[in-house]
Amino acid sequence: MRTVRVAFGERSYTIWIGASALRRLGEAACSCFPGGRALVVSDRNVARRYGPAALASLREAGIRAELLAVPAGERSKSLAQLSRIFDRLASLKLDRGCGLVALGGGVIGDLGGLAAAIFLRGIPYIQAPTSLLAQVDSSVGGKTAVDHRLGKNLIGAFHQPAAVLSDIASLDTLPAREFRSGMAEVVKHAAIADAALFTYLERNAARIQDRNKAALERVVAENCRLKARIVEKDERETGLRQSLNFGHTLGHAIETLAGYSRRLLHGEAVAMGMAAAARLSCGEGLCPKGDVKRLVALLERFGLPTAMRRPPALRQLEGAVESDKKRRRGKPRFVLLERIGKVRYGCELSSRGWRTALSGRPVKG
Amino acid sequence: MRTVRVAFGERSYTIWIGASALRRLGEAACSCFPGGRALVVSDRNVARRYGPAALASLREAGIRAELLAVPAGERSKSLAQLSRIFDRLASLKLDRGCGLVALGGGVIGDLGGLAAAIFLRGIPYIQAPTSLLAQVDSSVGGKTAVDHRLGKNLIGAFHQPAAVLSDIASLDTLPAREFRSGMAEVVKHAAIADAALFTYLERNAARIQDRNKAALERVVAENCRLKARIVEKDERETGLRQSLNFGHTLGHAIETLAGYSRRLLHGEAVAMGMAAAARLSCGEGLCPKGDVKRLVALLERFGLPTAMRRPPALRQLEGAVESDKKRRRGKPRFVLLERIGKVRYGCELSSRGWRTALSGRPVKG
Repeated sequence: MRTVRVAFGERSYTIWIGASALRRLGEAACSCFPGGRALVVSDRNVARRYGPAALASLREAGIRAELLAVPAGERSKSLAQLSRIFDRLASLKLDRGCGLVALGGGVIGDLGGLAAAIFLRGIPYIQAPTSLLAQVDSSVGGKTAVDHRLGKNLIGAFHQPAAVLSDIASLDTLPAREFRSGMAEVVKHAAIADAALFTYLERNAARIQDRNKAALERVVAENCRLKARIVEKDERETGLRQSLNFGHTLGHAIETLAGYSRRLLHGEAVAMGMAAAARLSCGEGLCPKGDVKRLVALLERFGLPTAMRRPPALRQLEGAVESDKKRRRGKPRFVLLERIGKVRYGCELSSRGWRTALSGRPVKG
Repeated sequence: MRTVRVAFGERSYTIWIGASALRRLGEAACSCFPGGRALVVSDRNVARRYGPAALASLREAGIRAELLAVPAGERSKSLAQLSRIFDRLASLKLDRGCGLVALGGGVIGDLGGLAAAIFLRGIPYIQAPTSLLAQVDSSVGGKTAVDHRLGKNLIGAFHQPAAVLSDIASLDTLPAREFRSGMAEVVKHAAIADAALFTYLERNAARIQDRNKAALERVVAENCRLKARIVEKDERETGLRQSLNFGHTLGHAIETLAGYSRRLLHGEAVAMGMAAAARLSCGEGLCPKGDVKRLVALLERFGLPTAMRRPPALRQLEGAVESDKKRRRGKPRFVLLERIGKVRYGCELSSRGWRTALSGRPVKG
């Protein structure tokens, strides 16, 4: 078991990472929820697989707990599902000493986290992320949200969890495509801030893809540590935290255009977004060609897409980027690669090269 | 024009109080919304009366602004109306440099404030409270919320406004009953923390009821200052801020039972709740009879109810108190009066005397 401490003053918390982390849920809930009651929010797939163990751990520790399962998939990140959670929390008459457990992937963490953020103006919650994407990304930093039909994550809050339990064993049953999608964020973290981790990923790609537990424990822990150091310095994304949006400006746009369907997973969109951003950086003369190649090669080692055969029309892309919430003063901003391990954020770029970059062709400066 | 500074570090802001404060809206929006665009949220009554002036002030200052009016009344503090605001904010493609103006009473401040708190995980907003209740109470402290059918303010957030403009002239047109309702919170502030203000209210009750502008400006400013000093010390209501719940434990309960209808205004419920809490304090031997009498007399001078002919059945009261969000670890807590100007919070009280206290009869210890 590894631990990462995330330091936010009074709201600091610990991430537990290991092959049986979920067994600690009851124990964690005892210290996080003094009121002794909890609602476990999950999706139907995860609930079937891990719900009984989670409830058993809570009940053994003397926590009165119930389970609410929403349909699996991004469509559950909606005001409608949020409202269902409020109905259940209110009818259980939970008070501020009670809590919520978000058991599942990123969708559940975002949805459950937002419910906890605004029910009674904030109750404590524990994240129990069961997907790689959630373990390395959304469980660190306290961002919670639901989608709006006009844009992803348009409605949300910053609300730090009281604890995070990342059970590496839950990655065993993760579908291959979701595992790959999680690796996109792992590669992103290494690319923006940790050249040594990038090299580790290049050298250990095979072990990681075989889901070797020791390798995954290390990868998850290093990612959490790296992301924690960034969000601690800039909780509300006024500066440094923007670097985490590498690949997200175009990534979110093509995700929005695909309608958050299963046709395109978040990590796949981000992988294409990163590759495109790297090509654009190179076109601007900011980043050596060799680093673009290393990035593209590593993403492809993990089975991720790095180009689109038919990128959306430029006008559509511009519209989708426009409606993205990362806009500032009306201008879309990009995170550009300087070299493996270093990025520059807040860059303005004309839309001239967007489609070229997404199509996989080199962009001229 | 008087000003009160509310100190929350980076989130500090100024409250402007005066007979033409609303004219400063455009100027305030220029410094609060660098993106130069705003959505004004109001209710239909207030929008008819002050909407054109608000929009004119914004547009003169170069702010592109639109107005969204929801139906008047507490029923608009709902997820459904919140969702309408999100639809409008999203379709306007406002970014984080743009903002929201909450123009209206407490309902609009709570609803608009929550929309601003969670749209894009927080955009700036300006409160332009037009009711006495909103000017002396809900515009200070950053509490925002909507109701749930199982309880008032169950869904909300803490989100400090970027500025508050309290236009005293808007109190001229306030219906008498709403004015009285606002005075309940004024009396509450004086009772819990400022014996000198209490005496001022006793001596100037007639001028205040005549809506003398100088007297009202002083009353609003002193109330804002007093509440600001409390919430600055305890933004998230873990201690001192609980004293502001004086009269609210039973007040909220009878309000919940009345169904947030126009049959009972918030201030009327709080007035009865305060009188009941004072009688309970006296029954506990905590507060002299004379102070209970002064409190009841002052509330009655302002035309507020201090007793119910037929209080709800005890079981109903208990149920409604139970579901109130101020509960901690399952036990309802009371704020009890020690003397005019001083209260004690976090007190547990058996439900034995609740109905007696609400009926206006003295409670035995």
